Amino acid sequence: MPDKNGTAAILAIGEELLLGSISDTNSAHIAASLTSAGWKVAGILTIGDDLTEITAAILELSAKHEILIITGGLGPTLDDLTRQGLAGAAGVELAENPEMLQNIKAYFRALQYPMKANNRLQALLPEGGRGLHNSIGTAPGIAIEINGCQCFALPGVPSEMRVMLAGQVMPIIGNRPGGAISVRELHLWGKGESDIGATLAALMERGRNPSVGTCAASGIITVRIVASAETKAQAEALLQADEIEIRNRLAENIFGADGITLAGAVVKLLTERNATLALAESCTGGLIGKLLTDVPGSSAVLTEGFITYTNGAKIARLGVPAEVLAGYGAVSEAVCRKMAEGVREVSGSTFGIGVTGIAGPGGGTLDKPVGRVYIAIAGPEQIVHRECNFLHDRDGNRIRAAITALGMLWRMLLS
Amino acid sequence: MPDKNGTAAILAIGEELLLGSISDTNSAHIAASLTSAGWKVAGILTIGDDLTEITAAILELSAKHEILIITGGLGPTLDDLTRQGLAGAAGVELAENPEMLQNIKAYFRALQYPMKANNRLQALLPEGGRGLHNSIGTAPGIAIEINGCQCFALPGVPSEMRVMLAGQVMPIIGNRPGGAISVRELHLWGKGESDIGATLAALMERGRNPSVGTCAASGIITVRIVASAETKAQAEALLQADEIEIRNRLAENIFGADGITLAGAVVKLLTERNATLALAESCTGGLIGKLLTDVPGSSAVLTEGFITYTNGAKIARLGVPAEVLAGYGAVSEAVCRKMAEGVREVSGSTFGIGVTGIAGPGGGTLDKPVGRVYIAIAGPEQIVHRECNFLHDRDGNRIRAAITALGMLWRMLLS
Repeated sequence: MPDKNGTAAILAIGEELLLGSISDTNSAHIAASLTSAGWKVAGILTIGDDLTEITAAILELSAKHEILIITGGLGPTLDDLTRQGLAGAAGVELAENPEMLQNIKAYFRALQYPMKANNRLQALLPEGGRGLHNSIGTAPGIAIEINGCQCFALPGVPSEMRVMLAGQVMPIIGNRPGGAISVRELHLWGKGESDIGATLAALMERGRNPSVGTCAASGIITVRIVASAETKAQAEALLQADEIEIRNRLAENIFGADGITLAGAVVKLLTERNATLALAESCTGGLIGKLLTDVPGSSAVLTEGFITYTNGAKIARLGVPAEVLAGYGAVSEAVCRKMAEGVREVSGSTFGIGVTGIAGPGGGTLDKPVGRVYIAIAGPEQIVHRECNFLHDRDGNRIRAAITALGMLWRMLLS
Repeated sequence: MPDKNGTAAILAIGEELLLGSISDTNSAHIAASLTSAGWKVAGILTIGDDLTEITAAILELSAKHEILIITGGLGPTLDDLTRQGLAGAAGVELAENPEMLQNIKAYFRALQYPMKANNRLQALLPEGGRGLHNSIGTAPGIAIEINGCQCFALPGVPSEMRVMLAGQVMPIIGNRPGGAISVRELHLWGKGESDIGATLAALMERGRNPSVGTCAASGIITVRIVASAETKAQAEALLQADEIEIRNRLAENIFGADGITLAGAVVKLLTERNATLALAESCTGGLIGKLLTDVPGSSAVLTEGFITYTNGAKIARLGVPAEVLAGYGAVSEAVCRKMAEGVREVSGSTFGIGVTGIAGPGGGTLDKPVGRVYIAIAGPEQIVHRECNFLHDRDGNRIRAAITALGMLWRMLLS
């Protein structure tokens, strides 16, 4: 590990992470927050619910870094040992904090649910530590200095962790003094990672500042620019030069920056154009609706959606002619076009999306294998259609179908 | 960290993980594979593309563990340094391996794409190491013994890593000799983590074998039983004794085991009862449909779904009376009941789910704050209803609303 100066570490605690029961999504979220405040995350360590290991890890990481963020192990049960680990590493005792106890009692009162005796354990704080209020759960967080390192323990439940990190921890930590990092992520649809890599080869060379990297997920490519400098203004200037260059080269494919989703870009364009959208989903089964309604404000542009699995529903809700279903089969270009046109008409919306396909694992034929998906977008002036052959599992095929549908609509909205 | 005996570690390498651009899903997958072969994963460490740190981490982890699985840093670019780190830790030089070079050339030939000069770097192996063939990418893996620890380096691309882990690495590692681990996870709905913790307190005591722990996510509580013994049969026997005990105490709340989702449990019960389901979603916007259609075979029981954001859609699709909407507001118990009854009737399904609420961040009032969600399940014999007050962000409120709706249906199906 490098100098302590300006570095941070993340410690994720939980046996379930070591058993592989769940992926750790908290650490990436914390790393992104620290990075954008100019801190360099030097490492992420995941360990189990073992007090000796927890204490040793806190001692070691606090000795090496200025900031340590810990998640997990703050629950009310006997396998939750982060409180004890912090006390052990700090060489102090645990004591019940009256304010935290009041908060926990208030939480149960608001829920109109009796508080259990073991929830009282969650009001224990290491002496010299400070409680961090958890407005949406029972586990308070803890802030304490150990080895000259600012240590923060947060609950492992992602929604609670996120609220407390943004609302309480990041304001205490603040921006890293005397060193700045600026990060920009540009999100692209409609071009492959190797194509993008070739287009940006010179910018992606090792040792360059800013560094430029790519990563791919479900058909979306993200180009990441990381600029380091002494001041935020210098870092921003470096970053912007690269951003302009990349935007020039890949303008046609960039739909957003810094976490904007493709659904978010679509909702924004629909809103700007005073347009509305309706959905007719078969194999995606509500996933496109879910992605769109993840976006706050989407209710203003999404009129309605139909999950039409059965032929009967396709006929009754969307007006797909029975003879088209009989002649071409439910998974076909003809039916998909009728679904998009039908949902646009029946809902009185500006745009309609129709998706039908075979997500897998069953249902494939020689003619129409698993992964075959038909997607149509009906607009005021045209209807576009695409036949896709995805090669993934059920989850992968469904998310790619949804992303492709949103990408096609995004493109139509821009044209 | 505990004794070296039987323990394994995972090392994830990549700057993008420390910047928080992506979550590390590889490590959970590897941890699950090692656990089911009887190995105890003692820790997961994530570090950046820095040769000194990579070498130090390999030295430290190989000294402490019998198995070390490394992901990332095997690409063709200058920031890929895992090969050098392994050579440094082993105290040997890198040399080009003719067989690996042939494999890489063959890969590009098959793609009909010219091989770039820098892909040749990927044929470098530490002396004494063995190449692991990558059939779906350019980066070969590496197997090498360091400090008496079996070390394996695999590409960071998840699909390549998974194929190589299952096909090549796990067969070499095999089951842990003289030690077996059995894991069972029981998934519960309708009871809080602290309640469950109180019920299982004696089983959850530290140092007990099997160990019993809990974790919570979006209203689902998972109870995890981990039994260690000399043989698999002994471990299974220990595990089963605890499982029976826990099932006895919490029978009413356990909907499945070992990764079964609540939607999966609902689809199974509907299928067994020859029953069908239709959805009327407002604030969840397709999320319940998405969760149900994640389950292969759900098309046999899910007739259709309606995403009815607007009042017009609630009236036209579900037959919610305009005067009920006007009198109570779209977010109300009365409208929610009409949605559930309406969708059941209009679709001719056995069960109907209606959900309406305020997911946030906007839209809340003093009377109906963000997080207020009404959920109704209409069945052949009864209609049940619940008013919920979730305290999370938009994502959190939506997933909790969807899980609660599925839980209520699950309960009705069992009664």
